[in-house]
Amino acid sequence: MNDVSQNAVPLYAQERIDDLLTHDLRIIQSDEVFSFSLDAVLLARFCSVPVRGRAVDLCSGNGVIPLLLTTRTKAHITGIEIQERLADMAGRNVRLNGLEEQITMLQGDLREPQSLLPGGQFDLVTVNPPYLPIPNGEQNINEHVAAARHEVHCTLEDVVRTGARLLRSGGKLSMVHRPSRLVDICALMRQYRVEPKRIRFVHPRAEAEANMVLIEGLRDGKPEVRMLPPLIVYKSGTEYTDELMDVYYARRDALAHGAGTTAEEPLL
Amino acid sequence: MNDVSQNAVPLYAQERIDDLLTHDLRIIQSDEVFSFSLDAVLLARFCSVPVRGRAVDLCSGNGVIPLLLTTRTKAHITGIEIQERLADMAGRNVRLNGLEEQITMLQGDLREPQSLLPGGQFDLVTVNPPYLPIPNGEQNINEHVAAARHEVHCTLEDVVRTGARLLRSGGKLSMVHRPSRLVDICALMRQYRVEPKRIRFVHPRAEAEANMVLIEGLRDGKPEVRMLPPLIVYKSGTEYTDELMDVYYARRDALAHGAGTTAEEPLL
Repeated sequence: MNDVSQNAVPLYAQERIDDLLTHDLRIIQSDEVFSFSLDAVLLARFCSVPVRGRAVDLCSGNGVIPLLLTTRTKAHITGIEIQERLADMAGRNVRLNGLEEQITMLQGDLREPQSLLPGGQFDLVTVNPPYLPIPNGEQNINEHVAAARHEVHCTLEDVVRTGARLLRSGGKLSMVHRPSRLVDICALMRQYRVEPKRIRFVHPRAEAEANMVLIEGLRDGKPEVRMLPPLIVYKSGTEYTDELMDVYYARRDALAHGAGTTAEEPLL
Repeated sequence: MNDVSQNAVPLYAQERIDDLLTHDLRIIQSDEVFSFSLDAVLLARFCSVPVRGRAVDLCSGNGVIPLLLTTRTKAHITGIEIQERLADMAGRNVRLNGLEEQITMLQGDLREPQSLLPGGQFDLVTVNPPYLPIPNGEQNINEHVAAARHEVHCTLEDVVRTGARLLRSGGKLSMVHRPSRLVDICALMRQYRVEPKRIRFVHPRAEAEANMVLIEGLRDGKPEVRMLPPLIVYKSGTEYTDELMDVYYARRDALAHGAGTTAEEPLL
């Protein structure tokens, strides 16, 4: 266990501290337990954040989305994570960055939200849920990785139902998921009165099928959805497109100088 | 009224004969009554056609989709159009191209399909329906243009319900529509047991929101949809992308030489 210089938090075996590339945020990760991916970074930029108010991040993992959201809003952010080891890591990430006043991490089961948070009071719910159904065969991967990838602790319907319950009327549910589940997502959002309003597909290359969908719904909204321009990751080979370079690198300077940080305005 | 040289059909005032740019097909159109647009051309290439069997085109207009489908399949194609003037134009288009054996045009109301066609027997239903709800105010446009654009004679639900009823189990419903209606389309298709399986968005430019969606569902299919690469129309200004050039021009030679005409394989 090592102490971290900035704000002293313990580090466990296999854990490392990575740079979040924006606002000098840093994050504790572990390939054995949880490390964030492009999905979370894109969702944190895609969602429409309130200037102030209250946001909640479901399936929060090591808290990467709450950390990134602090660069866009003064809203208070609650993260919910069911796995104790990850909720603990997320709590240390909050302390590591000195964000205890803006972020509260809770360990709990989002299927029982009444035991965690009041309903109808949040302006924004973000969620990067596990994408895959529970596999039939034996699971060779470890429990933490399995829970992050497979619907072990919650299904898509659990996520949408709880998100809808937490939102005030006019609040927004912003999600990243696999495009293959698009029809399920749309059907469930409508069923729970969160009408899809903005959708953006992410394609690895311009001529490839989408492998990610960003979707945002409005609690009690009316039907009619905007289909945003495709987000392309690679130009060719492993060279990022200009937009992805912007996501990963260019924003750092822009944000550090206070540009482009208008809350409410999605960055994707 | 003029006679047309190839196969004698009458032409009425304001009508003209255009080149369909593939297989030497020609088509009678009229800006006052009906002329096809990119939507129909893309749908005729996007849909998965059976090698043989039976297809039906709803809201068929002047029959442009049945005409184009004959370049991809030997299946018999029935076109249904509610407006007498358009159904007549479509019938002349079939004769103009000598396609009376492969295409049957019917004038009738798709909301009463039992009076037109048997249920559960078609391999493919195509439809380029009117996109817009019936306007509240006065309609200044003429009745033919209004019926092609607005849901005067049929709603989205009418189209999906009838399409589902006509299809055999495993048959496909292929539609072009506005992206803003995506959630409605997905919800209705699932409600009538036509599961969306392939979706492709059309963007005027790479950095613009989509203005068209091509969507194909499988009668009695299981959930899981593929999100195809975005189809971009213009490179910059009014210069078509290579893929659109291919749609409009290059296929003519390819098809004339018999290449790329494998039925079942979508051309988009």
